Amino acid sequence: MPIPSASTPVPRLRAAVLGATGAVGQKLVRLLAAHPWFEISALAASERSAGRPYGEVVHWLEPVALPADLARRAVVPVGSDLPCDLAFSGLDATTAAEAEPRLAAAGVPVVSNAGAFRLDPAVPLLVPEVNAEHSALVGRQSWGGGRGMIVTNPNCSVVGLVLALKPLVDAFGLQEVLVTTLQAVSGAGYPGVPSLDILGNVIPTIGGEEAKLESEPRKVFGRLGPAGIEPAGFGLSAQVNRVPVLDGHLLSIAVKLASRVSLAEVAAAFRGFGQPLAGLGLPSAPASPVVFHDSEAAPQPRLHAGLGDGMSVSVGHLRPCGVLDFRFVALVHNTVRGAAGGALLNAELLVRQGLLGRREVAVEPAAAGLATG
Amino acid sequence: MPIPSASTPVPRLRAAVLGATGAVGQKLVRLLAAHPWFEISALAASERSAGRPYGEVVHWLEPVALPADLARRAVVPVGSDLPCDLAFSGLDATTAAEAEPRLAAAGVPVVSNAGAFRLDPAVPLLVPEVNAEHSALVGRQSWGGGRGMIVTNPNCSVVGLVLALKPLVDAFGLQEVLVTTLQAVSGAGYPGVPSLDILGNVIPTIGGEEAKLESEPRKVFGRLGPAGIEPAGFGLSAQVNRVPVLDGHLLSIAVKLASRVSLAEVAAAFRGFGQPLAGLGLPSAPASPVVFHDSEAAPQPRLHAGLGDGMSVSVGHLRPCGVLDFRFVALVHNTVRGAAGGALLNAELLVRQGLLGRREVAVEPAAAGLATG
Amino acid sequence: MPIPSASTPVPRLRAAVLGATGAVGQKLVRLLAAHPWFEISALAASERSAGRPYGEVVHWLEPVALPADLARRAVVPVGSDLPCDLAFSGLDATTAAEAEPRLAAAGVPVVSNAGAFRLDPAVPLLVPEVNAEHSALVGRQSWGGGRGMIVTNPNCSVVGLVLALKPLVDAFGLQEVLVTTLQAVSGAGYPGVPSLDILGNVIPTIGGEEAKLESEPRKVFGRLGPAGIEPAGFGLSAQVNRVPVLDGHLLSIAVKLASRVSLAEVAAAFRGFGQPLAGLGLPSAPASPVVFHDSEAAPQPRLHAGLGDGMSVSVGHLRPCGVLDFRFVALVHNTVRGAAGGALLNAELLVRQGLLGRREVAVEPAAAGLATG
Amino acid sequence: MPIPSASTPVPRLRAAVLGATGAVGQKLVRLLAAHPWFEISALAASERSAGRPYGEVVHWLEPVALPADLARRAVVPVGSDLPCDLAFSGLDATTAAEAEPRLAAAGVPVVSNAGAFRLDPAVPLLVPEVNAEHSALVGRQSWGGGRGMIVTNPNCSVVGLVLALKPLVDAFGLQEVLVTTLQAVSGAGYPGVPSLDILGNVIPTIGGEEAKLESEPRKVFGRLGPAGIEPAGFGLSAQVNRVPVLDGHLLSIAVKLASRVSLAEVAAAFRGFGQPLAGLGLPSAPASPVVFHDSEAAPQPRLHAGLGDGMSVSVGHLRPCGVLDFRFVALVHNTVRGAAGGALLNAELLVRQGLLGRREVAVEPAAAGLATG
Repeated sequence: MPIPSASTPVPRLRAAVLGATGAVGQKLVRLLAAHPWFEISALAASERSAGRPYGEVVHWLEPVALPADLARRAVVPVGSDLPCDLAFSGLDATTAAEAEPRLAAAGVPVVSNAGAFRLDPAVPLLVPEVNAEHSALVGRQSWGGGRGMIVTNPNCSVVGLVLALKPLVDAFGLQEVLVTTLQAVSGAGYPGVPSLDILGNVIPTIGGEEAKLESEPRKVFGRLGPAGIEPAGFGLSAQVNRVPVLDGHLLSIAVKLASRVSLAEVAAAFRGFGQPLAGLGLPSAPASPVVFHDSEAAPQPRLHAGLGDGMSVSVGHLRPCGVLDFRFVALVHNTVRGAAGGALLNAELLVRQGLLGRREVAVEPAAAGLATG
Repeated sequence: MPIPSASTPVPRLRAAVLGATGAVGQKLVRLLAAHPWFEISALAASERSAGRPYGEVVHWLEPVALPADLARRAVVPVGSDLPCDLAFSGLDATTAAEAEPRLAAAGVPVVSNAGAFRLDPAVPLLVPEVNAEHSALVGRQSWGGGRGMIVTNPNCSVVGLVLALKPLVDAFGLQEVLVTTLQAVSGAGYPGVPSLDILGNVIPTIGGEEAKLESEPRKVFGRLGPAGIEPAGFGLSAQVNRVPVLDGHLLSIAVKLASRVSLAEVAAAFRGFGQPLAGLGLPSAPASPVVFHDSEAAPQPRLHAGLGDGMSVSVGHLRPCGVLDFRFVALVHNTVRGAAGGALLNAELLVRQGLLGRREVAVEPAAAGLATG
Repeated sequence: MPIPSASTPVPRLRAAVLGATGAVGQKLVRLLAAHPWFEISALAASERSAGRPYGEVVHWLEPVALPADLARRAVVPVGSDLPCDLAFSGLDATTAAEAEPRLAAAGVPVVSNAGAFRLDPAVPLLVPEVNAEHSALVGRQSWGGGRGMIVTNPNCSVVGLVLALKPLVDAFGLQEVLVTTLQAVSGAGYPGVPSLDILGNVIPTIGGEEAKLESEPRKVFGRLGPAGIEPAGFGLSAQVNRVPVLDGHLLSIAVKLASRVSLAEVAAAFRGFGQPLAGLGLPSAPASPVVFHDSEAAPQPRLHAGLGDGMSVSVGHLRPCGVLDFRFVALVHNTVRGAAGGALLNAELLVRQGLLGRREVAVEPAAAGLATG
Repeated sequence: MPIPSASTPVPRLRAAVLGATGAVGQKLVRLLAAHPWFEISALAASERSAGRPYGEVVHWLEPVALPADLARRAVVPVGSDLPCDLAFSGLDATTAAEAEPRLAAAGVPVVSNAGAFRLDPAVPLLVPEVNAEHSALVGRQSWGGGRGMIVTNPNCSVVGLVLALKPLVDAFGLQEVLVTTLQAVSGAGYPGVPSLDILGNVIPTIGGEEAKLESEPRKVFGRLGPAGIEPAGFGLSAQVNRVPVLDGHLLSIAVKLASRVSLAEVAAAFRGFGQPLAGLGLPSAPASPVVFHDSEAAPQPRLHAGLGDGMSVSVGHLRPCGVLDFRFVALVHNTVRGAAGGALLNAELLVRQGLLGRREVAVEPAAAGLATG
């Protein structure tokens, strides 16, 4: 992998959004609309929406106005030959399982938030500040004769967990992690959680989420060897809860570290964790991927999920644990850092790593016409 | 202690409510208004409210109408000589620290929900289904020459924790407990948590609550010996969160047991836990103090906090833990079982145990006049 | 119509619940499970659920345990020949439009909460305290040769509106009504309103609701003449909002009366409105169908929706209006008085009026078997 | 009044914030921290906070980090001689009644959000797009020999109402307005509304709010004559509700117009209403003070309160009214346009009108020292 540099000029890349009408898709659209490197070349959704203006078929949930030119853009089917240099996928896992390999086989690099291929041995499960080197896995992919690829980010709460753990893994090593989550409703997409279930209530389960929290972190922290990723070996236990919060997954975390250290050393590790991507000039990389709050009342979803434009994970309420070593609370903006923003940052990293760029393939006039009609 | 029996007739007892205008006080008033053994003889609150009709000074929060006769009752000061056989205390800890010993010294048995004396070596920290025998501690009290007494119930979330753990302690023994709570706003009383802090938000701390969760359970499960209570020795770690829920504290619990057992055995222990108080005929004792839900989506505050008229603790979402042995979720109605209802059940137990009854002391006409004027 | 009397003994009637798995259906099930006159003889739902135990197919939303015998009861299809003396319908309007006339044609009296036939000239739109005499309309129905019938209650917010207006209509006459509603999410059924749409938000529309509010009240207050119901002539304007409240529709009402009266006279009319059904011994009739609160902070959904076991409508915050004559706020428990409880009260009235009773038709063993298998 | 022009350079002005720790004060601080014309020269609060760093005494509620330099700034007492060219007041009405005239008498121009002087005949009640010419009223003020002044903005919901009505007043004239509000909790400041009162609930009153809604709009739309403001004469009726929404007051409005017009004409008036301040280059003036939504599901607090950076009022769900002429829904961001942002825009207008500028008076070193210590 060539050493990436912030000084290399980046060509403007055409990005398709898969699942553009969904909640993650909308966040991708909003973030891409203001992105310096990428421009939206296609809004792809189900056959039901195809051919109709995006503004008519989307139930727009973002608290800013949908740009008028995107509102007029005709939606294309996910299955179509998309005019793009890369595709961001906000598809649900089932659709992604079929559509993403098909696109990759057609030579399209797919940067996906979907869960379908996260544990595939040849697919990087990427959080740039944690395991940027895992992107080399794409060399093991054969979709489209190696021209296409699939790169994923972890589940939204996993992103918060691994970023919060990263300073501890680096400084002390990790033996055991026990996490309890309080997750926002936006994590379930739209229509998602019925209000009758969650108003003034807590639901102590989210289908499949605990299994993701107990498997994905081991891959993210795994070692890339000649045979692929060797998962990290720490113990891992998760129990998840849905709470009546709009955005921001809170994680109550207890850890047993590999070394015997003081509370002050742990605080220092959090406080001293910089931005490993500094110098790469990635537009979506926050100044501080981990913000440490020296307060027992922080972090809170409403106050801190938006820090670093939603790309910073907050850590706070650090204290000794009577059972393991330490307890603390982490917070991740689930639809930004945990989904759409995380996917954008992955794509930016791939561009800097030289793994993503302008595709040589011609864009057929018909497809382009569909997209701009 | 004489063997209590459900067949002994119980004389109607006059109960004072201390802190009657507060949130716990209101719940006490509501529950006492329909109680077969106790009748409200005094509504006591701060000097500010004294002398005015209860209905005018209380910001009534219960979703049923305040009985008209109680609304007209004049509030008496907490400090007064209360015409009662016992006093239920819904005072805040600071006021209780001064007022409860003074009343006890005047010969009044105080059944308290306040935190002031919970860890006093001579004061029982009582949950009848867990440690009914601890009431014998009152023999060590000297207030009022032994005529008065103070008996307490644990903090609201502790009550949920110890009831949920009791079947495991009995069946397998307990080595370590790690708990994360999601607590309702009613636990903070009134005015309590500002809406600007909690609407659509989570606050990862509650002042002093973690210390209570990490100390009180050891006393509740302690052994009553000749030298008093010897605290139980299991490891204990708590992190608490406030969530936008009205009533019902949810607890995510991970345990390490003293014996190696299967998930099925744990489930059987929960399911098979009966009502140790059965046969005593205590009006507030639920048929099942621990209700086991064979579902990963239960318990939920809105659906299950009211089971057993709010006196049953629910347990569900039981599964193996990747770090300790097992995880599960428990739920307690914090203002009923965790506060007012718990205090009532304590008083009922004391009556059956012969430790509470009609006081011989005369009620002065003046005091009675104040209370009914 | 014979003069009904509370002293006539009521035979126990077998009641089918149509749409038993829906939100209104569940409330019907809960209320019927404790009803002195009716017993549930069939739980009917869509073909998809038919044949399976009710406890497995229902997403039970009531905060009390589903009775075990009902949980085991096999669901029957709505279309089946139901073994019942009457059917309560909690169907959606589309299904009701087809199913209710079919059942009526088979001789089944259908007491419906659905909107399909509310404005049918031969169908009573009944609120017993307001227009009990409208039940005579069933004589104009020909379903099943007159053996079957359909009787409806109004839309949930309309029930609150007409009960709140009734004292004014009786005492002063009504010229104009302008209403703005704040409606709970339970009014939309399940899954109903997505949490992403309503958490910390207000939606200023509910499909079709304003049209109902601007038409149904005129029929309810209409005069029953030889040609049917002649709608009342008052002006009517409604704007509806969905708010993040679980139960209880609040209505902000401004009225212009037919006579010039003082605020005190209006208050007296509300306060003095009794229970016109008193003496009939209807189990679901509240002591006070209209509860007047002499407070500007009442009524509130959380505090007052449950008054009269959810069957009383609350009125408060009465004041002069700078544009019309008076303004006040009303509150109705939308799923009890506004739906399931309203339907039960309608059925009880019909029984007392001699319009409903034991059906002579034999229940086929097969159908009965289905229902109890 | 000289004709203001956008081309005149504006000197940087020193702004004090009165009540800087309150909710409105915090919003003022946040907005001023990024303002091109004003810089914060003093953070003033109660004696209790004076002398301590702002970051320690403020319970910071904004979802962005408090700038570090402001966090370190020592709070000064409101009563002190403030080093500033103007003071923005986020004081409560009682404190304002005493403090604002005292500051004005000391020569300080006070741009206030407080309610104390809104109806004072010599004080402009200013919404720049509605009644910019009312600022001339300051010529009638005598505080500080005419050097000081007090200028106010209306109550937060009144701002939404008058901006929504302005296009109709201009185009058709107004005879009657009947409004029902659904107001966010942030309007009550901090700690404000207890969560136990509002979670999953609606409160149909806000102390004093209805009187403000029924008086202030008449002054805002009044005519400035030689004898001062002659209030507008339209009929006005308001009923207010608190709803569990964080930011954004929704207003359900019914109007009777002075001319007979069609729905399409009304829609056109809303749609065609531009920005009367265009050309003045006021930093806080939105491109569109009134945004018309051609939808019955708009506006919604969560989606639209932030339009125009919180300075645009949204109007939607326009339809004919069965009692008056038309109904529609309006939305105002209560703490931005309705409070802090509105005050900033007022100050900007005054600067452009030549009524505000650098004060000649020297700043005493002591006071400056206090403020920066």
